[in-house]
Amino acid sequence: MLGDFNVRTDLALEAKESFAEDDVEIRGVRIEESADEEREIYTTIVRIETENGAKTMGKPVGTYITLEVPNMSSEDESYHRDISSELARHIRRLIGEKKKTVLVVGLGNRDVTPDALGPNVVGNLRITRHILKEYGKASLKEQESPVSAIVPGVMAQTGMETLEIIRGIVRETKPQIVIAIDALAARSTRRLNRTIQITDTGINPGSGVGNHRDGINEETLGVPVIAIGIPTVVDAATIVNDTMEQLIETKENRQTIREKISPHLNTMFVTPKDIDETIKRVSYTISEGLNIALS
Amino acid sequence: MLGDFNVRTDLALEAKESFAEDDVEIRGVRIEESADEEREIYTTIVRIETENGAKTMGKPVGTYITLEVPNMSSEDESYHRDISSELARHIRRLIGEKKKTVLVVGLGNRDVTPDALGPNVVGNLRITRHILKEYGKASLKEQESPVSAIVPGVMAQTGMETLEIIRGIVRETKPQIVIAIDALAARSTRRLNRTIQITDTGINPGSGVGNHRDGINEETLGVPVIAIGIPTVVDAATIVNDTMEQLIETKENRQTIREKISPHLNTMFVTPKDIDETIKRVSYTISEGLNIALS
Amino acid sequence: MLGDFNVRTDLALEAKESFAEDDVEIRGVRIEESADEEREIYTTIVRIETENGAKTMGKPVGTYITLEVPNMSSEDESYHRDISSELARHIRRLIGEKKKTVLVVGLGNRDVTPDALGPNVVGNLRITRHILKEYGKASLKEQESPVSAIVPGVMAQTGMETLEIIRGIVRETKPQIVIAIDALAARSTRRLNRTIQITDTGINPGSGVGNHRDGINEETLGVPVIAIGIPTVVDAATIVNDTMEQLIETKENRQTIREKISPHLNTMFVTPKDIDETIKRVSYTISEGLNIALS
Amino acid sequence: MLGDFNVRTDLALEAKESFAEDDVEIRGVRIEESADEEREIYTTIVRIETENGAKTMGKPVGTYITLEVPNMSSEDESYHRDISSELARHIRRLIGEKKKTVLVVGLGNRDVTPDALGPNVVGNLRITRHILKEYGKASLKEQESPVSAIVPGVMAQTGMETLEIIRGIVRETKPQIVIAIDALAARSTRRLNRTIQITDTGINPGSGVGNHRDGINEETLGVPVIAIGIPTVVDAATIVNDTMEQLIETKENRQTIREKISPHLNTMFVTPKDIDETIKRVSYTISEGLNIALS
Repeated sequence: MLGDFNVRTDLALEAKESFAEDDVEIRGVRIEESADEEREIYTTIVRIETENGAKTMGKPVGTYITLEVPNMSSEDESYHRDISSELARHIRRLIGEKKKTVLVVGLGNRDVTPDALGPNVVGNLRITRHILKEYGKASLKEQESPVSAIVPGVMAQTGMETLEIIRGIVRETKPQIVIAIDALAARSTRRLNRTIQITDTGINPGSGVGNHRDGINEETLGVPVIAIGIPTVVDAATIVNDTMEQLIETKENRQTIREKISPHLNTMFVTPKDIDETIKRVSYTISEGLNIALS
Repeated sequence: MLGDFNVRTDLALEAKESFAEDDVEIRGVRIEESADEEREIYTTIVRIETENGAKTMGKPVGTYITLEVPNMSSEDESYHRDISSELARHIRRLIGEKKKTVLVVGLGNRDVTPDALGPNVVGNLRITRHILKEYGKASLKEQESPVSAIVPGVMAQTGMETLEIIRGIVRETKPQIVIAIDALAARSTRRLNRTIQITDTGINPGSGVGNHRDGINEETLGVPVIAIGIPTVVDAATIVNDTMEQLIETKENRQTIREKISPHLNTMFVTPKDIDETIKRVSYTISEGLNIALS
Repeated sequence: MLGDFNVRTDLALEAKESFAEDDVEIRGVRIEESADEEREIYTTIVRIETENGAKTMGKPVGTYITLEVPNMSSEDESYHRDISSELARHIRRLIGEKKKTVLVVGLGNRDVTPDALGPNVVGNLRITRHILKEYGKASLKEQESPVSAIVPGVMAQTGMETLEIIRGIVRETKPQIVIAIDALAARSTRRLNRTIQITDTGINPGSGVGNHRDGINEETLGVPVIAIGIPTVVDAATIVNDTMEQLIETKENRQTIREKISPHLNTMFVTPKDIDETIKRVSYTISEGLNIALS
Repeated sequence: MLGDFNVRTDLALEAKESFAEDDVEIRGVRIEESADEEREIYTTIVRIETENGAKTMGKPVGTYITLEVPNMSSEDESYHRDISSELARHIRRLIGEKKKTVLVVGLGNRDVTPDALGPNVVGNLRITRHILKEYGKASLKEQESPVSAIVPGVMAQTGMETLEIIRGIVRETKPQIVIAIDALAARSTRRLNRTIQITDTGINPGSGVGNHRDGINEETLGVPVIAIGIPTVVDAATIVNDTMEQLIETKENRQTIREKISPHLNTMFVTPKDIDETIKRVSYTISEGLNIALS
């Protein structure tokens, strides 16, 4: 959900970039990079291994896989299939060998275009839990996970915290793992709709360190939570700030800039012109990734 | 949810019509009729008072208020305000004097036009529970009920029974009353989008007698459930059957008819041409009724 | 456009069935049938060759190709590709050898689900005329036709006759051929969303004989008009009438039936429950057929 | 249509601000300002009276009325009625005393949220031309103008220039005046969804001076064209540029800034988070203004 623009980025990859020179190591954080040049999929795995690393990065301990896919908003169907397969491979590894019952949660507001990623993904999923319940084990393929899904809506629509809704459903239906899909905020427009982040830490608002009570994560739900997100917006103040910092050297000036950035920018976001169509396409790519991973 | 077309009608009013000649009394069932000629709102209250009456009517013991409003699908805004006020009056009486915390549930499939009544109603509601939680009592008017709402989706979308989802949320957020909104099936096309049924018995699939375990009602949720519905479809087989029964006298022929009605009709429903627009309009009328009743 | 329910069927195939016993010939009308059992596509070509045949059939002189495809509303993508190819083959033959500039017209009301076929088809088309104009011949493949498209809306939305809008655009942009896509009314629920009719006679309301002035056809537009349609509704009165006629033998009774069919049924149509989803799927199949035929 | 982001602003008001100090006069341009403090509607009328003024302003000779309405995106219905009335007053004055036949054109892409203003406005209009044609003069009120409307789509959807479509329809249906509705780009986020511009110059892309051949205006259509627009986006590069210019004094630096602004920003726009809902609301306000003006 794109509610909280204090956090300038939801991407661990960008958190790392903002702190570290390329050749400097952060203690408690390990980075692996790999490139599939042929399919043009660039993978970065950030492993935050200690509370110290978590503090520096502003994100909880865990694994953050980022797929950068320059052509992800293109129309080429076979290319999207490649991305879906790659995504499926990572999801399967995080879920583990054993087949598990899964609840997929489509976070965000379906009536706000760049926030509708989660609801759209759920709309394309193969839902199977009710089939298993009605027709028994023979109705699913051997490796197929029983999948249920919910689009909880946002607090302004429900009056409830998303966590309350999901926790109620988890306690009632007892899935073994939750997969949460969410639109993210990035720091760079270059990453919009071209990056997928997969993490085993769930969804954690704010600094993400110490207090996990409000997040949608294993601590609050009692089952592991995998989160999959795509950055769909950059907040406007961040863009102005970042562009200007590149130009202006002295520290005093930077302070001035922050103060001068119009307060009008605070409720604004930056998004590409074709966002309505792009959201549909990338949602489909994620759904297919999930459909492959869970069947 | 328009899933179950075995039930030929969801309206207690029609259940009564099919059994009783106008002047015959059914034991355990009381009927009150009143007409507001000026506003053209015709009210029938069916009270099923005994298990015997419930068996005859095929509906659980409780109160069924039916507003018949011939012009409800018209565009006249002030007329819709009248209906909303009348609806609010009945809802308030069923809720009782004391202000209560309310969870509104919008049943049905938002992607199937005539089944989207519940989701649409929730979309127009004034949601306040989160405001109360954040800003305290002073943020709501004295008589205003804290309102939360959920659109759970249908089993094909979620893999879960609607009851599981709602029960989870009710246990987690503890509303004092649930109000469920649902599209209904009627027996007569004359009633489509022109009738509102309000009942204190909740939603009860099938014959509605004896076994309440699958319904969305006080027995399954632990809190009272008011259900509000509007008939938006007639199933096609019913229409053919009913029209023919009017013409054909002998009992043997009736049997023949039933057998001859094409099985292709079984997944078909009858709906007016302007259903997309009508659903929007009547949803708004119900939402306003709820907004008035709860504030 | 589903405006005119006097016409009980828009399918030449059904017009023929209602007049002729299977083994009787209609003068001026030739029928060819063929079956592709493997792909389960059944083709009937009705050729109305004389004005006499036209009068008997209630449709203008011309060729009517009907594809009956029992599984067309299924989700199987590869099957839809087969139908698209078959459709493309027929369209190409009607267009003729030479590459032509094409205007595709998506008739119907995009806000009424079963009438939204035309608008949906246009939404999935590959539009190329502007590319040719901007980048020259080299920008299109050798056999690719320059394609433009319009969704004119219906008279209640525009205040104009559809013919006026299309004629204005045809005169201004001078396409060599018009392809009109439209939702049709059928007589049998069995054909809903399972039949594609392709004709070189354009769209002709009413009896279709003699007076072509209000149609969207070569006479009114000055260029050939191919029409492609899928039946998406059956009107409710027709269903009741037809089912009853099967049961009742004497002619006097039939008259009685027609009179007794409730006038409430006149604005009602019969449609399958999953019409919202089905329209999306079959629209895509037609668009793909056009995309293949025109490139 | 939000296609052309070279033009940094579509508002005459902003064009004036960027050139003139508040107390300097531009030759050939007259400005009138007035404030309705009670209703919080601030009106600026820019009259470009000479070709010289047009060159300086980058907009054709004509009248540009700007209503600035700080609360226009609020939910208060009665406030929106005030704006609609004020808008209707200006439209009526531009149309002139005599009742005229009107074609309303809803420009923009209905599938791109901030560009959907025009299509949405047309969706709420009272369309009457066909009623007049069918039932004669007595069917309209004495002062009511026969209204027709079209949503032509954008070039990527139609393959045709919008001008071609509209010119074809104008020649065929012969309205006496065209009213074009369009989403605009502004320079300041403060003006987004809070400003209405009404002009008698039609729609003119690019510098707007000299060459009017591609515009939708009296020169190209042969009838007067009133354009009504609301700014719904600011392009991202403009925001960065403008904020930075406020901070940096020397001219050389400004050049550097322009060059350094990331090319990634060029296809990005800035829009408020609640744009989906806001577009619906302001579209309704404009439609009501038109409905009042034309009846």
